[in-house]
Amino acid sequence: MNRLLSVYAADFQAVVQPGLLYKDMNRVLARHGLFFAPDPGANASLGGMIANNAAGTRTPKYGATRDNVLALEVVLADGQVIRSGSRSVKQSAGYDLTHLFVGSEGTLGLITEATIRLAPLPAHFSAATVAFPTLEAAAQAVSEMIGAGLGPAALEILDAASVGAMNGQEEFELPTMPALFLEFHGATEETLAAELSMAQAICGEHGARAFEAGIGREARSRLWAARHQLGEILPRVYAGLRYVGADVAVPISAFPALAAEATAALEGLPEAHPYLFGHAGDGNLHAMIFVEGDDSQYEEVRAAFNDRVVAAALRLGGTCTGEHGVGIGKRRYMVAEHGAEAVKVMWAIKRALDPLDLLNPGKVLPEEEGEE
Amino acid sequence: MNRLLSVYAADFQAVVQPGLLYKDMNRVLARHGLFFAPDPGANASLGGMIANNAAGTRTPKYGATRDNVLALEVVLADGQVIRSGSRSVKQSAGYDLTHLFVGSEGTLGLITEATIRLAPLPAHFSAATVAFPTLEAAAQAVSEMIGAGLGPAALEILDAASVGAMNGQEEFELPTMPALFLEFHGATEETLAAELSMAQAICGEHGARAFEAGIGREARSRLWAARHQLGEILPRVYAGLRYVGADVAVPISAFPALAAEATAALEGLPEAHPYLFGHAGDGNLHAMIFVEGDDSQYEEVRAAFNDRVVAAALRLGGTCTGEHGVGIGKRRYMVAEHGAEAVKVMWAIKRALDPLDLLNPGKVLPEEEGEE
Repeated sequence: MNRLLSVYAADFQAVVQPGLLYKDMNRVLARHGLFFAPDPGANASLGGMIANNAAGTRTPKYGATRDNVLALEVVLADGQVIRSGSRSVKQSAGYDLTHLFVGSEGTLGLITEATIRLAPLPAHFSAATVAFPTLEAAAQAVSEMIGAGLGPAALEILDAASVGAMNGQEEFELPTMPALFLEFHGATEETLAAELSMAQAICGEHGARAFEAGIGREARSRLWAARHQLGEILPRVYAGLRYVGADVAVPISAFPALAAEATAALEGLPEAHPYLFGHAGDGNLHAMIFVEGDDSQYEEVRAAFNDRVVAAALRLGGTCTGEHGVGIGKRRYMVAEHGAEAVKVMWAIKRALDPLDLLNPGKVLPEEEGEE
Repeated sequence: MNRLLSVYAADFQAVVQPGLLYKDMNRVLARHGLFFAPDPGANASLGGMIANNAAGTRTPKYGATRDNVLALEVVLADGQVIRSGSRSVKQSAGYDLTHLFVGSEGTLGLITEATIRLAPLPAHFSAATVAFPTLEAAAQAVSEMIGAGLGPAALEILDAASVGAMNGQEEFELPTMPALFLEFHGATEETLAAELSMAQAICGEHGARAFEAGIGREARSRLWAARHQLGEILPRVYAGLRYVGADVAVPISAFPALAAEATAALEGLPEAHPYLFGHAGDGNLHAMIFVEGDDSQYEEVRAAFNDRVVAAALRLGGTCTGEHGVGIGKRRYMVAEHGAEAVKVMWAIKRALDPLDLLNPGKVLPEEEGEE
C-alpha cells in the first residue's frame, strides 16, 4: 500500500496510501509544482506521519500533518471500513472523525487511504543563518519575529554544541555559537527581501553577531539536509551511548522561558553530553542528551531533565509533545497535561471504538486509576 | 458568560467565553492590531461559532472556525468539566478532543471557554467587483484563480438576481449580471497590485465585462456590509414568503460543475424566486429560494432543489454542509455523505460521552437503523 493514487493539481490535493514515503512522493509532486509541506526530516511514510501528526521545520507557515489532512479511509477494530471527511476544504457535516484519527497513533483504527492538502512549490525563497551570544537571546528574537507578524517557512534554533556538531561532520564554517536558521517563502523577491530585512533588524536588537542572508539554492539545501541529519550525526559521534530526547512545545511568547528552563535543567545533570535545538518558529524545543554510564544513570537523566522540562512546558501553557507523540514514554504526562477527566473521555472513545483493545494496545493512554 | 478573558497579543491568541459576540470582540481586538478571522456575517456568539464550526467570506485565506481553535473548556453530560488542547500551536498529546467538540453542535458537551487564534489586521487590502456573462463563467474564473495559487482573503460569487437585490436596497450601481467580489490582504501594496493584476487577467479570459479594482476603504466596507446583509435584505423583499436555503461545498475544481447543476435545478421549480450566491473561494455555494404557495409547495421545492444539489455536491467529492451544520434538516444526508458505518462511529462516540442523550438530542445524527 505505497501508491500515490491521485493528484488533483487544481485543488492542491493528493490521495495516498499509507506506505508511500513522503520524500518519494514529493519528488513526483514537484512535476506538478506542488509539495506536501509537513516535513519530519526523515523519509517517513504518510501513514506514520498521519497516525502520529508529524511535523518539523516547515510548520510555522504550513501547519502540521493534522492541518493538511482532509479525508481518510480507516479500518476499524471490528474490520469495518469507514471514510471520514471529504475533498471539500470546508466541511461541517457531523463529528470531525478525520482529526480524531490523525494523531491517534494507531489506537483507534488503521489508516488505509488519505486525502492530503498540498502547497505550491515556493516561487522564491530566502534563507539566513544568524549567530547569537546566548540561546535565550536567540529565543527572544524568535518570539519577537513571530509576534511582529513575520511568517517564516522555517525558523530553527540550535545551541552552540549542535552548531559545532554540524560544523564538524558537514564541513560548515558557522560560528560555534547559538544560532537561528531562517527561511522565507514568497511570491516575489521584493517581499522576501523586506521580510529578511525586518528579521535582521530584530535579530540585531538581540545581539546577533553574524547574519548571513540570501544563502543560495545549493548551500540552502545542504544546510537543511545537515539540520535534518543532526539526529543521525549525533548518535554516530557518541556511538554506544544512549540518549534522552525531548519534544516540548509552548506558546511562542513563552519560548525564551522554556529555553532558559531547559538550559538550567542541563546544569545539574551527571556525565552527559547535551544538545538543544528545535523548531523555534512554533515554540517546539528538542533535546538529545547522550549519557555516560549505566541504565540507572540514563534513567536519572531522563527523569531529571524530562520531568522538569515537561513541567515547565505545561506551566507555560504548552504540551509534553509537540510532534513526536505519546507512545509509551509520555503516557505518564497525560493526566498532568489534560487532567484526569479529559483522559477519561479519551478512554471512553477508545473503548467505544476498540472495546477489545486490539489496536496498538498500551499506547497513548495511561492506565486508568484502579486498573492493574 | 460573555467576557473576553485574556488577549495574548504576542501569541495571536485570545481566551473567550461562549456568549461573547464576535463583532464586539473584534472591535476590542482591533486596539491590539488583531482580529478573529472567521466571519459568518451576523454578529454571532463565539460559542455558537465554535459549536457549529462557522465560517464565511474570509475562509479562503484564514480557514474556518475549526482551524482557529486551540483549546476548549467543556462541561460534559455528567457535569464534569474538562480542558482540551493547549496554547501551543503544535500539539500531539493524545486524541484531538478540541476538534471533536468544534462542530458537534452542542451534542457532546457545553463549551464554556475557548482559546482562539487571531490574525494581524491586514496592513493593506485591495478589493474588486467583476461582472460576468454567466454564473458558470464566474465559477470557472474562481476555479482558475485558486488553482493558479492566488490567495484571496475573500472571493464571493453572486448571481444576477442577488446583485440586483443589492443594487435595489443599497443603492449600488453594479451591472445586474453574475458577479465576483474579491478581496486580497497583504503586507505590501505591490504584492496586492500583482495579485489583482493576475486576477484581472484570469477574469478577462472568462469574459469578464467590468473589472472595478482598488475599491476604497469606505466603499469596500459598504460592499461587504451589503453582501453580508443579503440574507436579511431578501426576506424583507419577499415578506411573508418562506425560503429554501442551501449550503453545499465542493473541491474548487468542481465548483463550476456545482454552479451549473444548481442553475439547472432551479429551472424545473414551480412559482419560486431563486437567488444563488456563495463563498466561491472555498467551493461553498448558498441559495435562497422564496416560494409562493403553501407548505406542500415549499416542501416540493425543498426536496427537488436540495436533494439534487446535495447529491451533486457529494458526487463531486464535497459535502452537504460547508458551514451551516447539520441540525435537524440535514440529518437525512449524513449516511449518503459518510456511509452507514461512519455514522455508527459517530453514534458510538455520542453514546460514550452522553449515554442518556441529554445534550441537544435529535440533532446532527440520524436515527439509527432499527430505531423508532
